[in-house]
Amino acid sequence: MKFEIARDRLLDGLSDVMKAVSSKAAIPILTGIKLDVDEEGLHLTGSDSDITIQTFIPAEENGEQLIRTSQSGSIVLQAKYFNEIVRKLPTNDIEIEVSGHLQTHIRSGKSEFHLIGSDAEDYPQLPEIDDDRHFAIPADLLKSIIRETVFAVSASESRPILTGVHWQVQEGELVCVATDSHRLARRKTRLENAPEDDYSVVIPGKSLQELNKILGDSNEPVGITMSNKQVLFRAGHVLFYSRLLEGNYPDTSRLIPSEYKTDIYVNGKTLLQSIDRASLLAREERNNVVRFTADGSNVVEISSNSPEIGKVEEQVETASVEGEELKISFSAKYMMDALRAIEGQDIVIRFTGAMRPFILKSAEDDTLLQLILPVRTY
Amino acid sequence: MKFEIARDRLLDGLSDVMKAVSSKAAIPILTGIKLDVDEEGLHLTGSDSDITIQTFIPAEENGEQLIRTSQSGSIVLQAKYFNEIVRKLPTNDIEIEVSGHLQTHIRSGKSEFHLIGSDAEDYPQLPEIDDDRHFAIPADLLKSIIRETVFAVSASESRPILTGVHWQVQEGELVCVATDSHRLARRKTRLENAPEDDYSVVIPGKSLQELNKILGDSNEPVGITMSNKQVLFRAGHVLFYSRLLEGNYPDTSRLIPSEYKTDIYVNGKTLLQSIDRASLLAREERNNVVRFTADGSNVVEISSNSPEIGKVEEQVETASVEGEELKISFSAKYMMDALRAIEGQDIVIRFTGAMRPFILKSAEDDTLLQLILPVRTY
Repeated sequence: MKFEIARDRLLDGLSDVMKAVSSKAAIPILTGIKLDVDEEGLHLTGSDSDITIQTFIPAEENGEQLIRTSQSGSIVLQAKYFNEIVRKLPTNDIEIEVSGHLQTHIRSGKSEFHLIGSDAEDYPQLPEIDDDRHFAIPADLLKSIIRETVFAVSASESRPILTGVHWQVQEGELVCVATDSHRLARRKTRLENAPEDDYSVVIPGKSLQELNKILGDSNEPVGITMSNKQVLFRAGHVLFYSRLLEGNYPDTSRLIPSEYKTDIYVNGKTLLQSIDRASLLAREERNNVVRFTADGSNVVEISSNSPEIGKVEEQVETASVEGEELKISFSAKYMMDALRAIEGQDIVIRFTGAMRPFILKSAEDDTLLQLILPVRTY
Repeated sequence: MKFEIARDRLLDGLSDVMKAVSSKAAIPILTGIKLDVDEEGLHLTGSDSDITIQTFIPAEENGEQLIRTSQSGSIVLQAKYFNEIVRKLPTNDIEIEVSGHLQTHIRSGKSEFHLIGSDAEDYPQLPEIDDDRHFAIPADLLKSIIRETVFAVSASESRPILTGVHWQVQEGELVCVATDSHRLARRKTRLENAPEDDYSVVIPGKSLQELNKILGDSNEPVGITMSNKQVLFRAGHVLFYSRLLEGNYPDTSRLIPSEYKTDIYVNGKTLLQSIDRASLLAREERNNVVRFTADGSNVVEISSNSPEIGKVEEQVETASVEGEELKISFSAKYMMDALRAIEGQDIVIRFTGAMRPFILKSAEDDTLLQLILPVRTY
């Protein structure tokens, strides 16, 4: 193997595939990055067995020569060293050559590195996925869907299925649900060119977070292909594979109340800042709980009390309060997560009483719903 | 106590004094910040017993009213909470009032915090320092002096005196020396209006690092007053006290060679980048050692070798090499620290042989000297 490549392009590619590489890889070879070069270009592959990312750098792009291959071949190089070396090389022209016994030479300017590689034959194959169950979502929309739901997955492994986001495709609609059993996020998206089949898969939250970092903010379509054990996201030259979680995702639809007794219309950002302040004194306490009181007027009160430290009270103007008076307590963290996910200026919070779950959503839009279980303090 | 203050000015003051506050304070009251307000303005004080920082916000500045005091008084508030609360208050107008039993009310917009304060009588007094032993250095020059020396103090407590920087004033010159017994940094500065007395104190490296963060890049003079146990730096409205280290600082002058056998003139930045690359593969090894070879030509070779990972070799062009051929090994970290401290483009490295300490300095300027002990590998 022998080729020349522009350092900046190699760095871009490495920064994508490095996201899959873990320093605590179960299989030693997965601490490496696989390079496959031929006259078409260079494939880089990184994996931690759960996530596999492959990116392709073409030999030529828009008439510009990016890679000059003198000899095709493959090698696996220690990710940590290879990435650092490329980053610090003195010039933008890099030559990489593998001689006998996996000896890899990396040359740039008057600097020459010799790394001991591993045999590419020992690197795991890419997962096989049939291409017939397929749909596409623009990258920016996919990023929104991930951002609005993935924070609500469970951080605990006590129910592994809840560490993932449930993706269901049915009747031309994608419904994504995440819950840690204390709060829930649900996002519905109408699909163009929806697949005819129904899908129901559970994607690990960690995979979606990594995918989110790789996706750009363009509206370029991201192809999504699902099999029984794997999902593949295809964005431009990047392939992102994730294993799926096994098991049945719980039916969450019964959690969402069907009728409400108090509706509060309020500016989401104002409420977020107020909850953030009230939570300052509540952080040390077990649940980071704040109190929320609606007395029938157009003003609600946010408060919290830590006997050792002090207390805080704040009035928040609402657009309107409809229905019964209410005193309720909830986790400030869950509330702030939900308000950040909705992002919109005008939101509505719908309560069914102090002991029942309540929901938050945009005042104009039903596609995103956030649900929070209150905390019993009264 | 009752006063109104502009949030942004209070935040600026807090950010200075917070640098002295440690969450692991030995005396509980030192987890707090002391506020003293009267019609002149507000004093804020923070301390961890080693360092004490006091800043003053005047009631009026350039005709602008910054503080409106209705009732003078003092209180100590938990630093962590007070700082966070002020940062997140909804408006720039803050009212702080202490009612009976140290109850402190912090009001802004429709938000009201109640914090339980501590009695300001229990807060330690400021160190007493006679004002007669005094000199001044411009802030930007003082920052340079700190930056060029403090990194070389010892990180180990096995010889506590080496965790400080030795400051000596004699014959109108300030000489600052730091060493961890493997390398040494020495900075000489000619003083204007030097004091008549000689001084010799050892200032903890940690204190100088914190002082460096507080000082601005202006050429405003910083007043320096030394007593037997404390040093006081006075910069504008900020007073910065540090305790001094007790004990005799070792005589380091004998460490510096008086004659040299190989002089190498080289661009400091080019050499720094080359050492940085060579150290990539050496980091896992015990000493992070790189090899340096001068064969009599104008090119020196930097190399390192980690049997498990690989090796690197690099040629660096010099301006000139004078004297004997040389093979020497040293810590890449010490070399990079020294090169960063010198900062200049053209430097000279002076060697006395592979087993003897060598020095680095600017090719134009003798005020700063860096010395490094080599590592025996041949």
